[in-house]
Amino acid sequence: MSVLIVGSTALDSIKTPKAENPRLLGGSASHAAVAASFFAPVKLVGVVGEDFPKKYVALYKKHGIDLTGLQIQPGKTFHWAGEYELNMNNRRTLTTELGVFEKFTPHLPEKHKKSPFVLLANIAPALQHHVLDQMNKPKFVVADTMDLWLNIALEDLVGLIKRVDGFVLNDSEAHQLTKEDNVFAALKKLHKMGPKYVIIKKGSHGSILSGPDGFFICPAYPLHKVVDPTGAGDSFVGGMMGYLSTAKGDVRKNIRKAMVYGSVTAAFCCEGFGLNQTTKTTRKNIDVRVRELEAITRF
Amino acid sequence: MSVLIVGSTALDSIKTPKAENPRLLGGSASHAAVAASFFAPVKLVGVVGEDFPKKYVALYKKHGIDLTGLQIQPGKTFHWAGEYELNMNNRRTLTTELGVFEKFTPHLPEKHKKSPFVLLANIAPALQHHVLDQMNKPKFVVADTMDLWLNIALEDLVGLIKRVDGFVLNDSEAHQLTKEDNVFAALKKLHKMGPKYVIIKKGSHGSILSGPDGFFICPAYPLHKVVDPTGAGDSFVGGMMGYLSTAKGDVRKNIRKAMVYGSVTAAFCCEGFGLNQTTKTTRKNIDVRVRELEAITRF
Repeated sequence: MSVLIVGSTALDSIKTPKAENPRLLGGSASHAAVAASFFAPVKLVGVVGEDFPKKYVALYKKHGIDLTGLQIQPGKTFHWAGEYELNMNNRRTLTTELGVFEKFTPHLPEKHKKSPFVLLANIAPALQHHVLDQMNKPKFVVADTMDLWLNIALEDLVGLIKRVDGFVLNDSEAHQLTKEDNVFAALKKLHKMGPKYVIIKKGSHGSILSGPDGFFICPAYPLHKVVDPTGAGDSFVGGMMGYLSTAKGDVRKNIRKAMVYGSVTAAFCCEGFGLNQTTKTTRKNIDVRVRELEAITRF
Repeated sequence: MSVLIVGSTALDSIKTPKAENPRLLGGSASHAAVAASFFAPVKLVGVVGEDFPKKYVALYKKHGIDLTGLQIQPGKTFHWAGEYELNMNNRRTLTTELGVFEKFTPHLPEKHKKSPFVLLANIAPALQHHVLDQMNKPKFVVADTMDLWLNIALEDLVGLIKRVDGFVLNDSEAHQLTKEDNVFAALKKLHKMGPKYVIIKKGSHGSILSGPDGFFICPAYPLHKVVDPTGAGDSFVGGMMGYLSTAKGDVRKNIRKAMVYGSVTAAFCCEGFGLNQTTKTTRKNIDVRVRELEAITRF
């Protein structure tokens, strides 16, 4: 089965102490869609401006991504510029130019409305609601988010969480939303807000699932060097949803393995700027690392 | 086989926003010895003053700990007082009264010198050296440390690391010692400093082993509430060495499981002040949690 991914499509200018990379392909939907494409057919919904480079359209197409839902609007593509510190953990935003993204409304093409697997990648919760309003009984819906929406659209977000099967956020966001420092106490509170599955991302410390079969501690793939972590969280959830949508059996049976596949895909993302390294990998390379993760977590 | 544990024996006064607990049994050797006692016979080497409460001697004895190497010196027992913030991560030292610990020299009773398993729990590296000087061909020696020794006794510590089979430190200490932010890059550098096995502790994120069979990502047991993390690292390494010293087969085969046993023992430590909760647990309770950890890390 295919997976529908709705989110931001952007140009990212990423600066580190060692390099400067202007106008890379970025955005939550781009990272998630490329990650998911290693496992399943992907339908992307997003918006770009008339300045969107043709090479990035070609990149989506190379990954077999269905672009029927990609709107091209008069104006400029959403542009984000950020700078990382040497340790690659702290980053600051230098520029946010919304461009055509400011007035984006995710209209779903008719054929997209019956997609069984839906990933509401990080965008405004109001837009995530709007996507769900158009869907016709999806099988499994997961939403991702970011701290910005906790700050400026909390009510929309809390309403959205009630409507999804799975909710993904990082540890600092979980703390902000639940006022719990302890990640397991936070997971308990997040469950009570609605979703059957809650996943807290902890960067290089991996991620933790809370679901009907209890907790799952998902490892991060050991990387000796992180080149650029931008999009790692989107790659994680994209890879996970891609794997889930084609795995045999139900979500409950497959979600742990799906998270591990997502984790490995996110590791490839971190090894290059933007999508540079993700696009160079193959399903075979991903499988090799999943087997490595199996070996280094067994006891 | 038994395990020899040398380290500090102290009285800890621990303050949190919710409670104040004066003069609890503490110190690296106390925590490590009680943790190890669930798995193996333990010989403790340390020093206390004449004020050391009889109830704590009884507690050691209840755990079957051999106290032949516990010196009782004229003067006061080492006393540490610290205060934790609400999130239980940040702590500050209020008082350090070295007392008899100031002039401590770990003399090993004759029968201790042939101990096959030796844990050099956190004390000054010069004292850890002195213990090794007295040993007669131990089978497996592990050293733990703390940031203080990196700051004031770096040369001693670097010399010590060359002499041990396993070296244990936490992530911030690993960063300080290697100048590597990345934990896997730090592990690589630490190996080059001598030990066959290096373990980096990451608190609630678990720990990572680097050894002859590559990495092992060891999970932390999921706790919904941390009452007092003092001694958790000592409990981890104590539980690990206790398990290792009685497990059939060689260290290489058993070390992963030993870390998991250490991790679970450390979780019990965190659930009460000082050793209050550790002393209440049983090998059976520990086994239950190890099986739980197996279940929540499987994919």
